Formats: sequence, structure tokens, C-alpha cells
Amino acid sequence: MNALSDSTTTLAELKARVLAFAREREWEQFHAPKNLSMALAAEAGELMEHFLWSTPEASRAVARDEARRKKIEEELADVVIYALEFANMTGMDVAAVIEAKMSANAKKYPVEKARGRSDKYTEL
Amino acid sequence: MNALSDSTTTLAELKARVLAFAREREWEQFHAPKNLSMALAAEAGELMEHFLWSTPEASRAVARDEARRKKIEEELADVVIYALEFANMTGMDVAAVIEAKMSANAKKYPVEKARGRSDKYTEL
Amino acid sequence: MNALSDSTTTLAELKARVLAFAREREWEQFHAPKNLSMALAAEAGELMEHFLWSTPEASRAVARDEARRKKIEEELADVVIYALEFANMTGMDVAAVIEAKMSANAKKYPVEKARGRSDKYTEL
Amino acid sequence: MNALSDSTTTLAELKARVLAFAREREWEQFHAPKNLSMALAAEAGELMEHFLWSTPEASRAVARDEARRKKIEEELADVVIYALEFANMTGMDVAAVIEAKMSANAKKYPVEKARGRSDKYTEL
Repeated sequence: MNALSDSTTTLAELKARVLAFAREREWEQFHAPKNLSMALAAEAGELMEHFLWSTPEASRAVARDEARRKKIEEELADVVIYALEFANMTGMDVAAVIEAKMSANAKKYPVEKARGRSDKYTEL
Repeated sequence: MNALSDSTTTLAELKARVLAFAREREWEQFHAPKNLSMALAAEAGELMEHFLWSTPEASRAVARDEARRKKIEEELADVVIYALEFANMTGMDVAAVIEAKMSANAKKYPVEKARGRSDKYTEL
Repeated sequence: MNALSDSTTTLAELKARVLAFAREREWEQFHAPKNLSMALAAEAGELMEHFLWSTPEASRAVARDEARRKKIEEELADVVIYALEFANMTGMDVAAVIEAKMSANAKKYPVEKARGRSDKYTEL
Repeated sequence: MNALSDSTTTLAELKARVLAFAREREWEQFHAPKNLSMALAAEAGELMEHFLWSTPEASRAVARDEARRKKIEEELADVVIYALEFANMTGMDVAAVIEAKMSANAKKYPVEKARGRSDKYTEL
């Protein structure tokens, strides 16, 4: 079966799968950064639709609701697939850009100041 | 140093980093699926902003433009960070949901029918 | 002064202003539906950013907060400007399409069934 | 019949219709700015979906395609409905905020500098 799981799958493996899927279908011609960023944003919109009218607290239960969970998983998958394909098409290393961004975030949001607060760093 | 890269970093490692960052700041209380899906969509919007007025073809150069590339990397990082934190908060295995979604996509878009076409599967 | 207000301004007048602004700058060439829909979605993302971490209830106060209100007004303005320009470029009558959509919505959400409920019509 | 059209409908009339629809269903309790901004962004995503893989030029034809036009009109209607309801719930005058924003835009994008260029004002 060979099922994938987060604990054993590298970003590179996942990116390679997504790339192979597109290449096989000769879709790289459509996968310009502009188009992929639109597709990603559209899928993020679909993910949001599951939570429009619930409170944040209630949304935790929505995400675990059996009837909806499969759909929500599919929307999350679509989002990440487009993000990985964006990285493929632009030659970006996802782990490296995340590490760099989190390091910048750590400076903007030092633990002592940011603890338990949702304010933007400009307002801390 | 210990720099991360896609070829050696598993999804689980990246998810753990993102989770640790939030936990250290006691941000899990804010990280309801509703809020994370909004943040994800807002960051996807920021990624798009780099490509609003260029053609798809021209957007390939935009993504490689030295002056813009760093910013674009940061937006992509934000998108993936929120996607991973969404997975953390909802207990989803990103690699597994992607594998399942790609398997469904492969049925909707068989290679012979989808090759070189950008039509939705309902129109193939 | 001649300040505009909702009670005396028709949709057509507002659309004409938006169109004149674009024409004067020879921007119609960039205002393809694809590009305008992206710009609209990106601005909608910026509007959302003001409310990411507040509860729905708390967001009512955020929108009335003096320091933020001006910014929020500007984001709403951007959203509607792009929607009106989209209507300009595609020859759509905004009032007519809204009337048609609300009439369809009234059938999907009959008052007796929908009262006080946020469920999607497929679940009523 | 009494069909609405942009040339004879004021923003205030359209806002009043949207508000009446929500009130009749006792939906104001769900119409917090946070929720409405999410719904607006989700609908903007659906509008974009019609144009994901076409070039900007080709998207002009997509928007006039008979089979798709009705759907696109509905998405645009949804976007504007949520924008108007956002204005209702926050007490904003849409025409006034648009006039103010366009006046600011006119300073950022003076005709002589901006003519025929899609650059951001910071790069003009």
C-alpha cells in the first residue's frame, strides 16, 4: 500500500509527487506563479467556508465532525498541493523559507512580550 | 547552524516546529480552525498581490526577480505555516490527506483525457 | 464639496466614477476579469486581517474602534471599487444581478425555515 | 415587476434590501464583521475560480460566455451583497468611503505618472 504519513515523508518527496502529477498531464504550462497563487487563494476560501458562521470555539468541533471532516481534509490537501507546486515552479525550498520566516517571527514576537496575546507585533 | 531543507525535513518535523512556536507563546487558544483558515486565506491574498497585473507568463519572471523574491518566499512561508498549524490543531496528517486527494484527482483527471488541457474535470 | 452619500448616489454614478478613474490612467488594458477578481480577493483578504484573532462578537467593537475604523473603511472601499470595475469591464448591472440573486436566495432560505439559523440551505 | 437597475438604484436602497433580508431571518446575530469579511473573501474566491487557468485576455471572453455568465453574475452578486451587509452592520456609507479612497488614490497615482502603467505607486 505504501501509505504516506507525516512522520516519514519529506517535503521533497511530497513536492516530487505533486510535480510528477502535473508533468504527466503537461500542466506545467498552466502553472505560472500567478495562476497557482490564485488557485491557492481560491482553495483557502473553500477551506474557510466550513467555518463562516461558527464561533472560533465551535469551529474546533466542526473540524472534528465526522460528516464534514473528509471535506475539510480535502480542502487542506488542495491548499498544500498548490503551495508545493508553487514552490516547484519557482524553485523554492519550503523548509528553508519556513525556517527563515519563523526566525524572523521569533524576533517580532519575543516570548515574554507575545505570551497569551494575539496583538500584531507592531502593537506589542 | 542546522539549516532545514526539503530533502531532509519531514512534514512531522516542520509541524512540530510550528506547534512549538505557538505553544511557547500560548497561542493555541487563538488557533481555532476558523481563525487559522482566515489567516491562511489572508496570507494567500498577500501572495497573490505580487502577481495581480502581470500576465501568467510574466509572473514567472516576477517570482525570480531578486528584489521581490524574498517577499514572495515570506508569503509562501506564511501560507504553509498556517496550513501546518491547521493540521496540528485538527489532528490531520498532511501527507496522508494529500495522498488521498491526489488519488481522487487522478481518477477525475485521467492522463489521456487531461493531457495539455486546463478544463475542469466536469468538462473533460 | 459635493460629497457622495449612499442615500443620493446610484450604482451607475459610482460605477462611472470608477471607470473614469481607470480610463484617465489607461488602465482598462490591465482590468481583465481575471486580474480584477484577483485584486478583489486580495483586498477582501486585507479586510479580513483586521478580524483574524477576535471572536465574532469582539469584531463588532474592532470595526468601531477609532484607530482602526479608517483602515477598515479603506479596505471595504477597495473591495467595492474592484467589484464595480469588474461590473464595468464585463457589462454587468450590479443592482439587477443582486436582485436576481436575492430572489434565488429567498427560495433557498424561506423565512420560516431559516429564521435564526446559520445552516446552509442544503441542511435546513 | 419593479426590476432594479444601476441607473435608478441608490446604494441606500440596495443596502436596505440586503438588511431586510437578513432581519427577516434573524441573521444579524451571525453578521459580525469578522464573519462577513470571511464570507466576502470566500465569495471572492469563488469568483476567481472562473478565471484560474485562462490568460487575462482570454478571461474577457470567459466572462461573456453564455454558459458561464450567469454563474459569474451570481458570484459577483454574492460579493457585493456581503460588502453591503458589512457596511450595514458597521454603519459605513459606501459611497462616502469610496469617494475618500478614490481621492487618496488620485494622489498616489497622478495621471501623468500612472498612465498606462500597472506599477504600484511606491514604484512609480
